[in-house]
Order: sequence, then structure tokens, then C-alpha cells
Amino acid sequence: MNSQEINELLPFLLKKDSVARYEAGKVVIGDRRAFPFEKTFVECQDVEQVATAIEEMVTQGGGPWVAASYAMAMAAREVEGEPETHASAHLAKAKARLVNTRPTNTALALILDVLISVGQQALSEGRSAEKAILKTIDDRRETGYQEYLQRARYGADLMEDGDGILTMCFAETSFLLALALAKRDGKRVVVYTPETRPYLQGARLTAPSVHELEIPVRVIGDSMPAYLMSQGKIQKYFTAADLITLDGHVVNKIGTFQNAIAANYHGIPYFAFMWGADPDRPDRASIMIEERDPAELRSCRGVPTTLDEIDAYYPAFDITPPHMVSGIITHKGVFSPYELRRHVL
Amino acid sequence: MNSQEINELLPFLLKKDSVARYEAGKVVIGDRRAFPFEKTFVECQDVEQVATAIEEMVTQGGGPWVAASYAMAMAAREVEGEPETHASAHLAKAKARLVNTRPTNTALALILDVLISVGQQALSEGRSAEKAILKTIDDRRETGYQEYLQRARYGADLMEDGDGILTMCFAETSFLLALALAKRDGKRVVVYTPETRPYLQGARLTAPSVHELEIPVRVIGDSMPAYLMSQGKIQKYFTAADLITLDGHVVNKIGTFQNAIAANYHGIPYFAFMWGADPDRPDRASIMIEERDPAELRSCRGVPTTLDEIDAYYPAFDITPPHMVSGIITHKGVFSPYELRRHVL
Repeated sequence: MNSQEINELLPFLLKKDSVARYEAGKVVIGDRRAFPFEKTFVECQDVEQVATAIEEMVTQGGGPWVAASYAMAMAAREVEGEPETHASAHLAKAKARLVNTRPTNTALALILDVLISVGQQALSEGRSAEKAILKTIDDRRETGYQEYLQRARYGADLMEDGDGILTMCFAETSFLLALALAKRDGKRVVVYTPETRPYLQGARLTAPSVHELEIPVRVIGDSMPAYLMSQGKIQKYFTAADLITLDGHVVNKIGTFQNAIAANYHGIPYFAFMWGADPDRPDRASIMIEERDPAELRSCRGVPTTLDEIDAYYPAFDITPPHMVSGIITHKGVFSPYELRRHVL
Repeated sequence: MNSQEINELLPFLLKKDSVARYEAGKVVIGDRRAFPFEKTFVECQDVEQVATAIEEMVTQGGGPWVAASYAMAMAAREVEGEPETHASAHLAKAKARLVNTRPTNTALALILDVLISVGQQALSEGRSAEKAILKTIDDRRETGYQEYLQRARYGADLMEDGDGILTMCFAETSFLLALALAKRDGKRVVVYTPETRPYLQGARLTAPSVHELEIPVRVIGDSMPAYLMSQGKIQKYFTAADLITLDGHVVNKIGTFQNAIAANYHGIPYFAFMWGADPDRPDRASIMIEERDPAELRSCRGVPTTLDEIDAYYPAFDITPPHMVSGIITHKGVFSPYELRRHVL
């Protein structure tokens, strides 16, 4: 299956051009804050605008690395023809700003490092850094879609006819593509998606996207997974991961861990899709959990949920230890979290 | 401490007249849907209006039995002077309508049974059924506040200086009074309250009420308790209970069970305040879980959280089994859930 065919299987939100695209020096990002009520895009004219868009949650999950990568192409374009050392410093500055937008998801930093090297190599050979960076992004995205497909195949094979499947937040292309493949294989599943406060990715992104695939989906509250498990409604639990350490700790949207505890209690297997490995994140101690502005928890889609003077606390991610994880789904296969290092480095 | 002194320790929402009151044939109910943004009341002219108000969540927790009881006084007033059999049938009809508003919380039915007997007794003796019912409600509320105080004393004694305390939904007078007593005893605690979607009782009712007592409180998402436990921020978990079966199953707002699983995993004790025993609810099989309109999960304070065509599922309560409960706090003491039958019947 080529990336065009994969693209056709995907719901709107995950189609290549909906995530983010590059248009002659502008980065155009699909605005996931407005979805599904509006299908709009945010146009960014410079690196700062892209960084701010990522911080303000215009995109998330598999979106930030694409948007940030195009921002590097934009940065290269800004210094086209200028002295190499100056251009190189400009790229480094852009990278530092972009990496700073998401302290937990370290994949971003790894990719931007590659793009800097590619840009510097081009500059040192007198070629266009912008074009070199764009070519690398294209290749990466193409490879990315093939790897999504491989993970999705493994994921679909783990789903059984009649399964109730719990997820959390928006598990992106691997999960949605796995559901599409399972459906094509004749398996009927029902997806339960916690709404995922405060940004409601489960209610706004996952539910409409699964619905678009014509697969039954029900939104539940973030407080409800354990009770549904006790009712026998859930057979499998699948999430994406913002980061998986080499020793098998899964870092993902807060709530993932709480659901995993409930799944373990009820004897329900938990599988996490792995996006890429980071040799600098060997274990739990190496993880930095992003704490976002508490004010984000005091409202819901702009409407206050409590008084302004009430304190709140919003750690954006949590950590699920390896003993709660039945399998890590990589593009090379489904591995025990304890065996990960052997397969992904 | 008399009920007036207890009343003074309580935050606005739990003061006697804020819960519900009877004003010459009208039932005036504190509107918890509008709190804390507005402090308003719903005036009900007949039983149907009271029943609808309860169904529409104008009040909850310890509120419905008070409102429904006053509705019985109102029903008695409506048939003042009419033949005894007609008046008696009218009361029975009112009770049936009111009991139907909350299938899970059976305390309501038990109290209304008492009020019917009282009313019928008065009628058979040619006295005013309205007055007899009001007198019984007054006595019940007075006794209720004394029992709140006893439970609160036991609860406060379980709290230790420096504790981080998790709760769920709005644990009402027993819990808030326990916090007030703990504070008076010189114990400094921090309360973490999950917002409790979809009605946000944690964010709207618990947080402002604890704040009013000048005790530190932080709103968190319903997905976050387990992560806070893993960080060492939580030492005790306290909730109210809509119903506790005689064999120690705690029925409370959905999410209570999920938090209890996480608390057990982290070695954190869970205590539930018990309001009253129901001999007709001996075990798990006797519990009926109310499933509310899924549409309530598709919005937050009137703002849509997903598309109308997306399915949702909203069981309003869950069931925590006795092996996860460290103690049931009754007005007679703190008991093992396995010993409950011996103490509360």
C-alpha cells in the first residue's frame, strides 16, 4: 500500500495535508482545537508563530513534529543566501525555540537535529538548505506512513471480532489505521473513548474520526473506564505514546496510567503504539513531565468550570510502568516492554 | 454543638436553608447547577416540579431527600380537608413520582415511606398531615445534623497533619464538616478534587466549598488521581456514598471505583461516609445503576464537546467492592465494610 492508498483509508484529521503542510514559506497547520465543529487551518509566517501554535495546542500527537519540521524549512528560507555561520546559527536558534514547546515528547528534538544536519550539509555545499530540509521531511513522512501501516497491521491483528476497545486521548494514525484494517478484515469492534479533559481530544478528535470510519464509537467520561471494564464491555486497551523509555515506561496523555491500573485489575491487556525510540530516555528518571497552566483546567471550550480564584493542577502526561504493559507495538513487531531495548535501538 | 453551631461551620452550599426549605406550600431548592457562578434557588409549586428539579440535577447528594420530603408536605397540603382515602392515595402517588427520580439512591424511598405513615396517622386522627410531615422532617434534619457531626468527628480523626486528601464529586456535609473540624484541630491538609464530569460537582461545588473553609484545594481532571498518587501527593481518599449495601459495596458517583483501584494499587486507604442503611439492599445484585441521557456527556455547561451524532454512554454511578474499602464512616463509628451489617441495622 503506498502512502496515497493509506491516506485514503484515514479520516479527515489524519490525512497528510490536514496535519500540516508547507506552502511557499508558510506553515499551514490543521487546527485541532476547532475540530470537529470547524475544519480550519492556522497559517504561520515564522518560527515563533509555529512554536506558539504548538504550545497553544493547535496540533498535538503526531502533528507537532511535522509542523516544527516545516518551521525549520521556513527558517532556512529566511536566511537563504546569507553567510553560512549566520544561517547555521539561525537554524540552531529556531530548533531551540521549537524543542522548547513540548518538554515531554523528545521525538521532536531528535528529528530537528537531523534537519539541522541536513541543512548545514546543504549550506556547506552551497545548496538550498530549505530544499534539502523539505526533501528530508518528505522522505520522513513517506517512511512514517509505511511504518504507521506496519504498526497498524500488528495492532489490527491484536483486535478480535466482538472486542470492546478502550483508548485514551487521540491515538493517531497507527490506531485509526489499525481500526480501518480490522474492519476491512471483517472484525466488528466497538471503541470507547474517554473525552480526555481539558482539551477533549477523545470527544472531539477520536470519536468523530472513528465515526468517519463507520466503526461504532461511544464517548465516555474520563472517570468511567474502570466501571465499563467491570461490566465486561472492554476487552482490549490501546493507546499511542508520546514517549516510551528504553526500559518500557509508557509516557502518554494523563489518564493513560489510571486506565492501565484499572485494566490490570480486570485482566484486560494494554498495548501501546510506539512512534520512535530515544536513546537519551533510558528510564523513568529521564522523563520530564510537562505541567501546563492550571487555568486550562478551569474552563471547557472557553466556558468557566469553576471560579478563577480556585487553584488547579494540570500535569499533562503520566507514566505507565512496564509491568502494566502487555505489548509495545512497533513497526518491527509487538514486543514485551522489557525487551524493547533489544529491538528498537 | 447544636445544629445552629454546625450550620455556622458549613460553607454556603450546605447551610440548612441553602439545601432546600419549605415556604407556605412551596418548596425552594438551592440550585446547584448554577453554583458557584450564581447563588440561585428554584421555587417549586407542586410535586411534579420538585420531581423534575431532582431529575434535572437542581440538587444532588444530600439534597434530594430534603426536597422530596418537603414535596410530601406540599402534597398533604393540597388535599387538606379532603376524605382520608383520597388524601392517602394522593400521598402515595406523590411518593411514587418522587422515588422514581433517583433509582440508585434508595434512602429517598425509605424516608418517604416514613412520611407517608406519619401523614396517614395524622389523617386518621383528624390532624393536619402537612404539619405532621413537616414536624417529622424538622426532627429528621435535626437528627441528621447531629449524625453529620458524629461522622465528621470520626472523619476528622482519620485525617493527619500534612495529608493530601483525594475526594470525588461532592461529598457533602460529613466531609466538609470533617475538614472544618480537622482545621480547628490544627491539622493542615490539602484537598484534591477531580472536576467530576459531566456536571462538574468537584470543580463547581467541592472546590469552592472547601475554599470557603479556607483550606487549600486544587481541582484536577478526572483522569489524574492515579498520577498524583504516584507522585506521593495523596495520603487518604474520602468520598460520600449514594448507597452502601449491607455487605459493604459502596455505590457512589462514577469514578469513585476507578480512584479506589488506583488508591489500592498505591497503598492509600479509602474511607466512605455512610448516610443510612437500607435492609432491601443486601448486596451487589440488589443495586440498580442509573444510566442517564448520553446527551449530557456531549456538552459541558451548555457548550458542545463533540458532534450531536456521536454516541455516548453515561452510567451515573459505580460500585466499589468491600475489599477496596478501608473503613465505612457511620455516626456510630468507623467499621470494616465486612462488619457493616452488625452495626447499622
